[in-house]
Amino acid sequence: MSIDSYLAAAQARINQQLTAILEQRHGPSMRLHAAMKHALLLGGKRVRPFLTLATGKICGADEDDLLQVAAALECIHTFSLVHDDLPAMDDDALRRGQPTCHVEFDEATAILAGDALHTLAFELLSDEHLKLSPNQIVQVTRTLALATGDRGMCGGQALDLVATGHDLTEHDLQQVHNYKTGALIRAAVNIGVICGNDDAQNWAADFDEFAAHLGLAFQVQDDILDVTATTATLGKPQGSDIEANKATYVRLLGLDGAQQRLEQLHHKALHALARIPYNTDTLEAFAEVLLTRKH
Amino acid sequence: MSIDSYLAAAQARINQQLTAILEQRHGPSMRLHAAMKHALLLGGKRVRPFLTLATGKICGADEDDLLQVAAALECIHTFSLVHDDLPAMDDDALRRGQPTCHVEFDEATAILAGDALHTLAFELLSDEHLKLSPNQIVQVTRTLALATGDRGMCGGQALDLVATGHDLTEHDLQQVHNYKTGALIRAAVNIGVICGNDDAQNWAADFDEFAAHLGLAFQVQDDILDVTATTATLGKPQGSDIEANKATYVRLLGLDGAQQRLEQLHHKALHALARIPYNTDTLEAFAEVLLTRKH
Repeated sequence: MSIDSYLAAAQARINQQLTAILEQRHGPSMRLHAAMKHALLLGGKRVRPFLTLATGKICGADEDDLLQVAAALECIHTFSLVHDDLPAMDDDALRRGQPTCHVEFDEATAILAGDALHTLAFELLSDEHLKLSPNQIVQVTRTLALATGDRGMCGGQALDLVATGHDLTEHDLQQVHNYKTGALIRAAVNIGVICGNDDAQNWAADFDEFAAHLGLAFQVQDDILDVTATTATLGKPQGSDIEANKATYVRLLGLDGAQQRLEQLHHKALHALARIPYNTDTLEAFAEVLLTRKH
Repeated sequence: MSIDSYLAAAQARINQQLTAILEQRHGPSMRLHAAMKHALLLGGKRVRPFLTLATGKICGADEDDLLQVAAALECIHTFSLVHDDLPAMDDDALRRGQPTCHVEFDEATAILAGDALHTLAFELLSDEHLKLSPNQIVQVTRTLALATGDRGMCGGQALDLVATGHDLTEHDLQQVHNYKTGALIRAAVNIGVICGNDDAQNWAADFDEFAAHLGLAFQVQDDILDVTATTATLGKPQGSDIEANKATYVRLLGLDGAQQRLEQLHHKALHALARIPYNTDTLEAFAEVLLTRKH
């Protein structure tokens, strides 16, 4: 199977899993349910669940467990997008080419839909049908919580709020991204390892290093695409980060400099992967696809 | 020790625990940390952590574990208050006699502080120092997640948004409260039982029934206080629910009718408690204090 078909198949199974999870739920508010569905099933690259799935498979984890855990990662990512898009935050009307949650519904419903997706992640992890050991579940929960909260993604978003409109050094910008997007991408890979067999735990540090470089490279690529891609391919207004006066790698290093940094980080990610004595072709190919994407 | 001193001592220990948890944390954003602290340490009755602590002690649970788990309950409650107070939701400027989080800081920071407290709850439950078994931790996590998300508190808040300005039957109003506040109060008690010994699990259904009646009675009392208490003792504008055109028990049943419903529910709560063959004096006394409070 070519990597493209492999990626497409994995994305389809992740989307199927997310759809099934929402279809089985019956909360008291249909409007809240519709808003959660709008946000979660809007599409998207499914980067984080893919990383959990691919890493977990490499590490010998059970595939049903991985799909459920991967769905939890996507719930966290989606909740952060819904809240990030709110008028008080980035005030974005368009996401993945569709109206954002507060535009399609209303602000209050979007706040609650984000909250409910946030909780859903932890509900999925504590599902009684998982075959993971209770010990593994606690470790996965802890890893996800640390990556999400004030010492992870939320902390990074708070840093980003303050940083907007200020000149940052590359070190500062990297810190923002390490928290804001890097933490969850690392968690996606690390959680795949935790779900794996005992031997896989020996390579946890290498998987983590791969994920750290990949996460930062992903962000550099995002900054490059913000100025090089068109609104149609991006699904959001082109140049919106530059316009919002956000610190970006392109602003800091120029377009060529940002391209160079991207290649360095990509190389480092592959280097970490090369130390792991398993077949890591899927992760290698995913990094290639992710870092050469056009949207 | 009188019940008043017992309650005061328990509240002091809960506040101490919450303070210690925040003081040990060092996230990247000091502003986010300050907003979390503002929200979490503003005071409040600490109803939910008290219920976990008192129930857990009755059921033979370890006290250090209980304090940590109780803190997680208060983090969830506080996150819901911070988001509920936002301009897009209830738009409240005053909470516990102090400026609400978005007034003291700003909307974006309040959204993130709520999110970070939400995650913190699940981080606390997966703390490696807990003496609970991994199995108990997964059960506690599941119970808290179910009570918080779209099939619990968030679902109730979404119902409440739609209900505002409409005439509800008592059945509909009860449904709103069962989800919006009842679910978390029941979880607080049920989690205390889960942390307890094996024998305590035999009385789980009776503890749950106690909590369900107590939770609803607490809400009826809230509606009564909204019209009978003064702004100074309430810490929020008196009559604000009636003014916001919210469905309340007083609006539906009249003041006397609401008082009668409160007494019925209180009686049912004590009746459930009486079936449990342990000394449940602390819970009985707490119900008495809670349901005769003046603010």
